[in-house]
Amino acid sequence: MSVPSTQKQWVITGTDKGFDGLVFKEGPVPKLGENDVLVKLHAASLNYRDLAIAKGMYPFPIDLPKVASSDGAGEVVAVGSRVTQFKKGDKVCTLFNQGHQYGELTIESVGTALGGMREGALRSYGAFPETGLVKAPSNLNHVEASTLPCAAVTSWNALYGLKPLKPGEWVIVQGTGGVSLFALQFAKAAGAKVIATTSSADKAATLKKLGADHVINYRDDPNWGATARKLTPDGAGADHIIEVGGEHTMTQSLSAVKYGGIITLIGFLGGAKPKDSILEALNKICTLRGVFVGSREQMEDMCRAIEANDIHPVVDKKVFPFDQAKEAYEYMWAQKHFGKLCIKID
Amino acid sequence: MSVPSTQKQWVITGTDKGFDGLVFKEGPVPKLGENDVLVKLHAASLNYRDLAIAKGMYPFPIDLPKVASSDGAGEVVAVGSRVTQFKKGDKVCTLFNQGHQYGELTIESVGTALGGMREGALRSYGAFPETGLVKAPSNLNHVEASTLPCAAVTSWNALYGLKPLKPGEWVIVQGTGGVSLFALQFAKAAGAKVIATTSSADKAATLKKLGADHVINYRDDPNWGATARKLTPDGAGADHIIEVGGEHTMTQSLSAVKYGGIITLIGFLGGAKPKDSILEALNKICTLRGVFVGSREQMEDMCRAIEANDIHPVVDKKVFPFDQAKEAYEYMWAQKHFGKLCIKID
Amino acid sequence: MSVPSTQKQWVITGTDKGFDGLVFKEGPVPKLGENDVLVKLHAASLNYRDLAIAKGMYPFPIDLPKVASSDGAGEVVAVGSRVTQFKKGDKVCTLFNQGHQYGELTIESVGTALGGMREGALRSYGAFPETGLVKAPSNLNHVEASTLPCAAVTSWNALYGLKPLKPGEWVIVQGTGGVSLFALQFAKAAGAKVIATTSSADKAATLKKLGADHVINYRDDPNWGATARKLTPDGAGADHIIEVGGEHTMTQSLSAVKYGGIITLIGFLGGAKPKDSILEALNKICTLRGVFVGSREQMEDMCRAIEANDIHPVVDKKVFPFDQAKEAYEYMWAQKHFGKLCIKID
Amino acid sequence: MSVPSTQKQWVITGTDKGFDGLVFKEGPVPKLGENDVLVKLHAASLNYRDLAIAKGMYPFPIDLPKVASSDGAGEVVAVGSRVTQFKKGDKVCTLFNQGHQYGELTIESVGTALGGMREGALRSYGAFPETGLVKAPSNLNHVEASTLPCAAVTSWNALYGLKPLKPGEWVIVQGTGGVSLFALQFAKAAGAKVIATTSSADKAATLKKLGADHVINYRDDPNWGATARKLTPDGAGADHIIEVGGEHTMTQSLSAVKYGGIITLIGFLGGAKPKDSILEALNKICTLRGVFVGSREQMEDMCRAIEANDIHPVVDKKVFPFDQAKEAYEYMWAQKHFGKLCIKID
Repeated sequence: MSVPSTQKQWVITGTDKGFDGLVFKEGPVPKLGENDVLVKLHAASLNYRDLAIAKGMYPFPIDLPKVASSDGAGEVVAVGSRVTQFKKGDKVCTLFNQGHQYGELTIESVGTALGGMREGALRSYGAFPETGLVKAPSNLNHVEASTLPCAAVTSWNALYGLKPLKPGEWVIVQGTGGVSLFALQFAKAAGAKVIATTSSADKAATLKKLGADHVINYRDDPNWGATARKLTPDGAGADHIIEVGGEHTMTQSLSAVKYGGIITLIGFLGGAKPKDSILEALNKICTLRGVFVGSREQMEDMCRAIEANDIHPVVDKKVFPFDQAKEAYEYMWAQKHFGKLCIKID
Repeated sequence: MSVPSTQKQWVITGTDKGFDGLVFKEGPVPKLGENDVLVKLHAASLNYRDLAIAKGMYPFPIDLPKVASSDGAGEVVAVGSRVTQFKKGDKVCTLFNQGHQYGELTIESVGTALGGMREGALRSYGAFPETGLVKAPSNLNHVEASTLPCAAVTSWNALYGLKPLKPGEWVIVQGTGGVSLFALQFAKAAGAKVIATTSSADKAATLKKLGADHVINYRDDPNWGATARKLTPDGAGADHIIEVGGEHTMTQSLSAVKYGGIITLIGFLGGAKPKDSILEALNKICTLRGVFVGSREQMEDMCRAIEANDIHPVVDKKVFPFDQAKEAYEYMWAQKHFGKLCIKID
Repeated sequence: MSVPSTQKQWVITGTDKGFDGLVFKEGPVPKLGENDVLVKLHAASLNYRDLAIAKGMYPFPIDLPKVASSDGAGEVVAVGSRVTQFKKGDKVCTLFNQGHQYGELTIESVGTALGGMREGALRSYGAFPETGLVKAPSNLNHVEASTLPCAAVTSWNALYGLKPLKPGEWVIVQGTGGVSLFALQFAKAAGAKVIATTSSADKAATLKKLGADHVINYRDDPNWGATARKLTPDGAGADHIIEVGGEHTMTQSLSAVKYGGIITLIGFLGGAKPKDSILEALNKICTLRGVFVGSREQMEDMCRAIEANDIHPVVDKKVFPFDQAKEAYEYMWAQKHFGKLCIKID
Repeated sequence: MSVPSTQKQWVITGTDKGFDGLVFKEGPVPKLGENDVLVKLHAASLNYRDLAIAKGMYPFPIDLPKVASSDGAGEVVAVGSRVTQFKKGDKVCTLFNQGHQYGELTIESVGTALGGMREGALRSYGAFPETGLVKAPSNLNHVEASTLPCAAVTSWNALYGLKPLKPGEWVIVQGTGGVSLFALQFAKAAGAKVIATTSSADKAATLKKLGADHVINYRDDPNWGATARKLTPDGAGADHIIEVGGEHTMTQSLSAVKYGGIITLIGFLGGAKPKDSILEALNKICTLRGVFVGSREQMEDMCRAIEANDIHPVVDKKVFPFDQAKEAYEYMWAQKHFGKLCIKID
């Protein structure tokens, strides 16, 4: 396979025209540095963050124009002269914060996110430093693998980054967004019990099929936190809560959490704006943790778990072709999706 | 149900006559202290250790005569005036080292084992301090619950006591003894990959049914350590090895272990006598760990995992009646059992 | 030494008259249960919580009348027939939540606090279950040892309960309350760097003497969070912040914390009422943790560290005699104290 | 400062002539890759491993000829076009296994050691990938900083890599080799108690000066393991033992270790050849761990602790000039050194 000199790519040119600022245009295939890996990208997935960036609603700094999307997957087509970890033919995923290798984020690594600070994945070919890629789980196709960099790593970080989940613990996930579904799948694979919330019978059935032990309809049961707590052994509450929700979910999470339990705030991704005071965390003797995706080390651990348990990400039945990426943004903005929304890249 | 004043019990009266030192006799139902719980024992299980004690082959101090067996399960029939954690009707298991509540063993707690230092479980009624019991997983019957105190807690400690097992890690278990089968079941429930070894096709089939991803016949493949290593991703080796074996297994374990991996030595229980020098651990950059059952905190965590994952211990199809406990010892000594050998208590 | 049948004790008789509800009266020396230890109490210390209970300002349930104070130290004078961990002559401290042995608090153990739910330490003799005591560090006298159960264990839990402090990390402590001073001493003993805040030059000098690497006067520098951050390597922020303050400290803490850092909320003890939204925790990618004292296991670890490093708690120069305990409450309420306020018990 | 095109370097040309295989010769200053950092090396330190390599006694694969020594320190004089973590003027140390960034060693990273698999530090200028360097603690001069990559990181890994040392724990260090002295200094900075062994009164005095709480003369007291155990609280034994010794030390270590304690085997560096069977680890219910230096993440943590506690490595009073490196090897081979042996590089 010969690598062309130019390629198609979706560029965020500005944020004042919303998704119309996304422009599909020709650009050069990047030059391969000594430590770079050239990837033929085959798929990308979208996160709420990508929509917010395009809409000018992202609260963190970005640096436009940039190729859109943090989440890509593909195949290695060439490696720089000093690359040691990858070879031609390897299937790979992108790392969200390219500089976040291990440990906690730093002031430097927080500014290395694809699709905002660095050129993203919505293009045919990308050159990434080898430290900015991980091997894709062998059980996944490119579309599935493209869903991992942001949402899945965030979930993994929530469950394993501070107080690793143990079999027999109880996890609460909210709704059917990407982070929540990954948390459900990871928790079940790890021998935990899962309570999921949703507002529709259809989604409840899907959550059950994915392994949820209990599903609570939060429309029917606005005080679902207390209900969830009662489901846990001795009514002690949940060990881990993945808090992605809107205004009122935090109150319920605080009602459902166990002493010493962890509520992980995936706020921005889901648009959460909890109004509860920090003081509540004290009264509930629990831990609130903000996370921002995760490190390469965590992503490698996660990929190993996905492969070992043959976990397949939930992908919306509609996968958009490369030239309709803007339609994909609009479809997701209209909340027509279930699971991860993906784009196939030519 | 009224509690009688006397009961039947199997007492280890001495070790010079082997199993004939086990005497089935009448004794008083113990007096209930303020912090004690009176348990109507319904089942007990045997460990290799119990056989060794009766045969005078146990290398650690014991204090005879004592009621035999460390592993019992039953129902609470009365509680002392200051008991807070249990009530009548609760189903419970005994804690192996009665004084081992949390953290590491101490010089004091190591001398509090049932069926050797303290009166054991092979009797109709036992009084135990409330700290010497845990609630049985609700999914188990008494016979199943009686298998947990020694073998299952040992496995749990191996997998979670030092470097907690994570989903996607690889575990090697050897043979079909109680500790190995529990480790297989726990590891699979936790999303790990498991390689098991055995010497028979029948047992291999059972191991597969229990979830083993790979089974190696160590008769056919004496260098099974290298074979196991090749099965792991990139041939990196296993993260956890439960080493219970005989003279030659340690060499294979050292060949199969990953850098930084843990080989847990369950030596005595299985009679292991590894001849390898400690120096090998250095050359393999791995960790060797001796464990001696585990704490009450660990047993509670384990019971939660058993219940959440509906794990059922593997029990030999032959469950002995109470008055044939000596036959049970002989049956197990002759290695006729598969899985845990249990005795129903009247 | 013979044990009398009656003794003097300070009883919280009600909360409607403030400290006048504290009554010094004669009561029986408690009967010794089988698992109990009889302690001749020699000292008690006060916490803000004790004042709040007496004033009717404590937000958690209490059960009056009760002997006051959670924090006592003394000498064992007798042990129940089944006590194994203590003997006559041992020097001991009380455990705050008597039922909190290991792991996280539970619904049961949260209701076992001395001086509120159970009879406290402001009496000549107390009988405690052996699990409700720990051996006092051998380097401390009774007055010093009496300061440990609440404030010191809270600090230890903050620094070691979730993400154990490592040498070289940076800790911020606020003001000169008991928890803050213990955190300063523990952090320095453990090889961490400490930034302390205060509003007076005198206290700043004392904080420096206790080992603080930097002291910031928060009156002169209301944006002390940014100042503290700049003191840390690369301006990355603090790894641990002990948040005990008032309305405005949380804003500063969120400004000073590192990515992945932990802000431990010791809110009630210091009367904190942070108004910041939980959402801030997300934006700062940090962890907020509420703690409520700590377990017996943690207290034992802490006592070992105190002894090994010959740490001496900071005790106010005025130690009140037993019959003036009410004056001690008033002195502390008027904030005349520096360090822990103690009462010698006859 | 202009960078010359050639430089002096000490090359291991072969192992059949012992130290005469070390040749001081001119070579090119390496070309700077995009991700490389050019370092003007100012000092190197020697480890027993370097002597063994030169003598042909190293049991692991090496790839000659190579510039000698794994341990170097110096100043950045130029950076490649894509370097982000370093700039001109930064003071740096080399990373021992250049590929070991985080987590455990891998099959790949174990083959990336300087001075054996890759060009080492005994040269005026070295080009290293930026991931192969760490910033030197600001309190150290170049000679001191050059002692860190192998011995210090090994000690840090021993104390923090598996079960992080906590204040109040007890550590045993053996002799006065580099790893042992670092372990002593790290443990004291972290609030631990330290028992050191030695055979001379002079060295005992130095160990005391460095902070050792107890020093045992192992010549006078061949059963020093039991003596050490008695020094620990309740005779429970040591939490961490840094085992570097010869034939008989392991027996003593096994006698001195606590239940659940860790004996870290620094065997090769000190030439240890323990004859004890692995079975002993079981009987002592302890953990034996082999380590091979440590990761970049660990080295960064360590440097932070060194800086925060102003730890200064123990350097032999004789620092050799660059052109006498061979004499340094001989001096160290003759065991004339105390602490780390260093070479100043022109």
